[in-house]
Amino acid sequence: MSDNEYIKQHFPLLATIDSPADLRKLDVSELPQVCEELRRFIVHYLSSNPGHFASSMGAVEINVALHYVFDTPHDRLVWDVGHQAYAHKILTGRRDRFSENRTMGGLSGFPNPSESEYDTFMAGHASNSISAGLGMSIASELSEKQRNIVAIIGDASISGGLAFEGLNNVSSHPNNMLIVLNDNDMSIDENVGALSAYMADLTTSKRYNNLRYKTYQFLRRHHVITDKGKGLVLRFNNAMKSLLSGQQNIFEGLNIRYFGPFDGHDVVQLVKRFRDLKDMTGPKIVHLHTRKGKGYKPAEEDPSVWHAPGKFNEETGERIVSDATGKPLKYQDVFGHTLVELAEQNAKVVGITAAMPSGTSVGMLQEKMPHRTFDVGISEGHAVTFAGGLAKDGMHPFCAIYSSFLQRAYDHIIHDVAIQRLPVTFCIDRAGLVGEDGVTHHGAYDLAYLRCIPGMTVAAPMDEHQLRHLMYTSQLEGKGPFAIRYPRGGGVLTQWQCPMQELPVGKGRKLADGERVAVLSIGTAGVDVQKALAMLKEKGIAVAHYDMIFLKPIDEAILAEVGEKYTHVVTVEDGTVDGGLGSAVAEWYSDKAKAPRLTRLGIPDAFVHQGTVAQLKAQCGFDAASIAQTIENIITKTAEK
Amino acid sequence: MSDNEYIKQHFPLLATIDSPADLRKLDVSELPQVCEELRRFIVHYLSSNPGHFASSMGAVEINVALHYVFDTPHDRLVWDVGHQAYAHKILTGRRDRFSENRTMGGLSGFPNPSESEYDTFMAGHASNSISAGLGMSIASELSEKQRNIVAIIGDASISGGLAFEGLNNVSSHPNNMLIVLNDNDMSIDENVGALSAYMADLTTSKRYNNLRYKTYQFLRRHHVITDKGKGLVLRFNNAMKSLLSGQQNIFEGLNIRYFGPFDGHDVVQLVKRFRDLKDMTGPKIVHLHTRKGKGYKPAEEDPSVWHAPGKFNEETGERIVSDATGKPLKYQDVFGHTLVELAEQNAKVVGITAAMPSGTSVGMLQEKMPHRTFDVGISEGHAVTFAGGLAKDGMHPFCAIYSSFLQRAYDHIIHDVAIQRLPVTFCIDRAGLVGEDGVTHHGAYDLAYLRCIPGMTVAAPMDEHQLRHLMYTSQLEGKGPFAIRYPRGGGVLTQWQCPMQELPVGKGRKLADGERVAVLSIGTAGVDVQKALAMLKEKGIAVAHYDMIFLKPIDEAILAEVGEKYTHVVTVEDGTVDGGLGSAVAEWYSDKAKAPRLTRLGIPDAFVHQGTVAQLKAQCGFDAASIAQTIENIITKTAEK
Repeated sequence: MSDNEYIKQHFPLLATIDSPADLRKLDVSELPQVCEELRRFIVHYLSSNPGHFASSMGAVEINVALHYVFDTPHDRLVWDVGHQAYAHKILTGRRDRFSENRTMGGLSGFPNPSESEYDTFMAGHASNSISAGLGMSIASELSEKQRNIVAIIGDASISGGLAFEGLNNVSSHPNNMLIVLNDNDMSIDENVGALSAYMADLTTSKRYNNLRYKTYQFLRRHHVITDKGKGLVLRFNNAMKSLLSGQQNIFEGLNIRYFGPFDGHDVVQLVKRFRDLKDMTGPKIVHLHTRKGKGYKPAEEDPSVWHAPGKFNEETGERIVSDATGKPLKYQDVFGHTLVELAEQNAKVVGITAAMPSGTSVGMLQEKMPHRTFDVGISEGHAVTFAGGLAKDGMHPFCAIYSSFLQRAYDHIIHDVAIQRLPVTFCIDRAGLVGEDGVTHHGAYDLAYLRCIPGMTVAAPMDEHQLRHLMYTSQLEGKGPFAIRYPRGGGVLTQWQCPMQELPVGKGRKLADGERVAVLSIGTAGVDVQKALAMLKEKGIAVAHYDMIFLKPIDEAILAEVGEKYTHVVTVEDGTVDGGLGSAVAEWYSDKAKAPRLTRLGIPDAFVHQGTVAQLKAQCGFDAASIAQTIENIITKTAEK
Repeated sequence: MSDNEYIKQHFPLLATIDSPADLRKLDVSELPQVCEELRRFIVHYLSSNPGHFASSMGAVEINVALHYVFDTPHDRLVWDVGHQAYAHKILTGRRDRFSENRTMGGLSGFPNPSESEYDTFMAGHASNSISAGLGMSIASELSEKQRNIVAIIGDASISGGLAFEGLNNVSSHPNNMLIVLNDNDMSIDENVGALSAYMADLTTSKRYNNLRYKTYQFLRRHHVITDKGKGLVLRFNNAMKSLLSGQQNIFEGLNIRYFGPFDGHDVVQLVKRFRDLKDMTGPKIVHLHTRKGKGYKPAEEDPSVWHAPGKFNEETGERIVSDATGKPLKYQDVFGHTLVELAEQNAKVVGITAAMPSGTSVGMLQEKMPHRTFDVGISEGHAVTFAGGLAKDGMHPFCAIYSSFLQRAYDHIIHDVAIQRLPVTFCIDRAGLVGEDGVTHHGAYDLAYLRCIPGMTVAAPMDEHQLRHLMYTSQLEGKGPFAIRYPRGGGVLTQWQCPMQELPVGKGRKLADGERVAVLSIGTAGVDVQKALAMLKEKGIAVAHYDMIFLKPIDEAILAEVGEKYTHVVTVEDGTVDGGLGSAVAEWYSDKAKAPRLTRLGIPDAFVHQGTVAQLKAQCGFDAASIAQTIENIITKTAEK
């Protein structure tokens, strides 16, 4: 049965919705069934093609009610992160392609403007929806487009500094943005729920707000409130003034009208709320309570595991976990175990994660030494500056952050760690191509953006033992800021345990001798190089291979040796070719009288989308086969001469 | 008269204070005189050696009271930005060197741990004190050092996202940090002042807090409050819960005890407050009102101009402004005028600044078109994401941010602008060496950190006309994200006006032909190259000069031409040599059969401290004389062969 037929048979109402316009033709009383079908639809497709499950299940009613009430795509829905937007994708013309979610050439796992006009802004990194939505709201005002803008943000994302900067600016210029706070952490207390339902009817009724708005206009006319305040600082001070005036709400303190909390799973009531708020002038926030994994019992009971559960049995809810016995651990787990070991040996060692204790495996330390583990939430900048403070007064923080998220902390690395040469180990997780999470999540730039920082050590292990040695080395006296990057998953050793030893900083190693061509690699790209060399060996071609281990300081002895012995150098790295290892090598040879020809392999100067890691490496030209082919071409060309 | 003798004569009490230990020997009744002397001291020295005036004048009592009450340097004062910390410098052993403030080899204008053990953390970039202080507080807990940690933050800095992330994390782990909010914006209303003085005596009295603390302990013992909450999100939710519980304060909502507001100029009362708060368990914030420029009438009346007033007449308060008639405008002003022109021609153009309307001259647009100008406060990340939102819905934002502060918005440039190829012009002000502001403020890395971003255009004008052409070009259809970097001050043309024209993206220009050596420069470094070439010409040496204008895309036609014609290439850029123009050139030639030898000049791979721009360029080896010398050496060497 084709997807299309299957859908018609199992999801009769959904099958009629090719766009939100179709949704809006339905009677409001039909919406609960739409929600019910959407939930089953998500369960069905995610059971075989994994994705972000619990968040999307929890936000089905919000998705439906927003598209029902707002005139999308003219009106703008701005999803924060986008974990919660599968229903949005399904309702906006992508229902029949949903089985290709997160695959190469298929749908992006996050809202992506290049995919659909309904995806109004890039999502993937948390906390940007309020700022982006505010930009759109003001663009609408300036261009007189009369758009409604809705930013939908979760309770985790709103803790990021960017969200706060957005909130702090929301009231600074005339706009009508609606912020939907999707809060799936706080449970709804019966009493509070009843009280707030009462308040809700009052506060969202047009009559009340009309009165309120008129009062506001009156105060403005009489210059009690003026348009031009004393600048921005005033806005934050307004929040502080709430102390004096008796105002009671943090959002109201920031001059954003607040409504809620309401039940985010009552789609009929949500439609009413959104209709009431839709045409209300000025910025406002509506606070909705939802439950992660709503409607699928296993997910409701363990929403953390079901955030992205992998494949599962649709009927029983049993997760399909492949047997890992005898297989290499993930880099994350080796990192986690090693962090615990180091913390046991060195009382200065502490661990920091920004909302990713399980993703990074910092959770292992949290389990054993909660007082020496710090999960700071979605706030990468704070994570790094906080690490700087800890290091300044004698601790040695291991700060584990995904490569693409560490971009949020770039200034903090320079200003709050590197200038002071503080001993912080940056454990850069998800470095290089990450696969299915796609364009926003690849860790493509860290080698380039760290290499230009004075005094940073930048290293990447080729296997799990090296990871352990590098971690050990980084916490020894006097090493200063030390970055260690490693990929998502992907270990290679079945025995990851080993005694830890100091690696000399800035020293690589030779793995193979050869003729004419030498390959210099850093990190796990070296594994692909080894595979390529094995392929070439079968053809009788022997090329040299050096594992640089350190990008900075770079091993000049190796570069000198290679410059003497070989006519061609190929660099391979799981990172952008502009600014990383290839650049460092090009720079070093550039002023030498005798320089080998250089071919730089890595992530090209273009944004890479989703696919499996293997597919993407092949696309970028640095999987084993491409490396082998590149080398063979060089050898053929030089032989021709 | 030596500084030392002058000080003894004019500042008798200050002359006895060689360290805070000496201050603490004084009776509290003598502190007002210390403050009075400090103010005169600052006025005296800054009148001839310019610095950050108004903030430091406003925080004299806070500086004195903190060092009087706390056991510095064992206890830690963490100054945010550091504009307000001159009294701190003078009290901590640097009194007699204060005349060398902000000079090469002298004192840094900001607190700097490499200068004094009393400067506990790097300052210069706003909003980091709470996160850094929290790290120190927890380090003190873990190492049982029994330190008190005080973070001193202004009302402008606390609006940054990093400060919020810090505040949001303050209550997550046991610590006793004190946050001093130095609020010089809100004036103290008589009534409020009286009421709050009353409240103050109540709230900071030990008896009250003892009772409060005991209650807290009681609740903990009975598990009403537990140590391990439901994680971070909960902390922010606590703020939201204030709505329901009737709590009234944003800080209390974040679980930080709040005291104030108090008068920040009553040093005797401040001592009492700080003593009360010093040994109180748990995080707390004290809110102080101060007046910028306090004690110096011209500064009190116009604190914005007196933020950094330049030289002035100590007696009359008249600012000594040199006659600029006939001299080139600053780049900032040419930018400001041009922005207004473009906004007049193109209804899509809007201007954005992050708290720097006068520094960047975005203020000129603000004056003419307030509804198309956005000062978002200290929140560079928001500035960029907000620009992304505006651009997504049809506007063309010019986002003017200082190079070193733009580091705060790195992820936002990639995720919220570049991936979507949105038309945002990044006007990167203070690019390259900035001079007296020193190590935290040099714009050294932008070329390197922007070059690796796919689809970014990165350009730098060599003169004011090029700046105008580049600005004009950037706002034409289809140009995508476009970065234009230019230095602090430093224009070269007396006639900056010119008709604006489109520059072909990725195309440089030849300025001079020569023999053997070609110099490739980008931006205003080209002016120094021209001077160097003039010096060489006098010696009969002619070298070629190309102004690349664009770093990305780089002009490959020029590189090919130069590779054919010249044996040596020298690149010159006012930015780090690792990752910028020199690297791009090295990369391009690295795979060519015929490649010239390359010498890369620019900011070396080391942190550069304060001095005049001329001194620092010489130190880094890319002032005109150094460039000329480098070229001469190359020519001599090649002639020898």
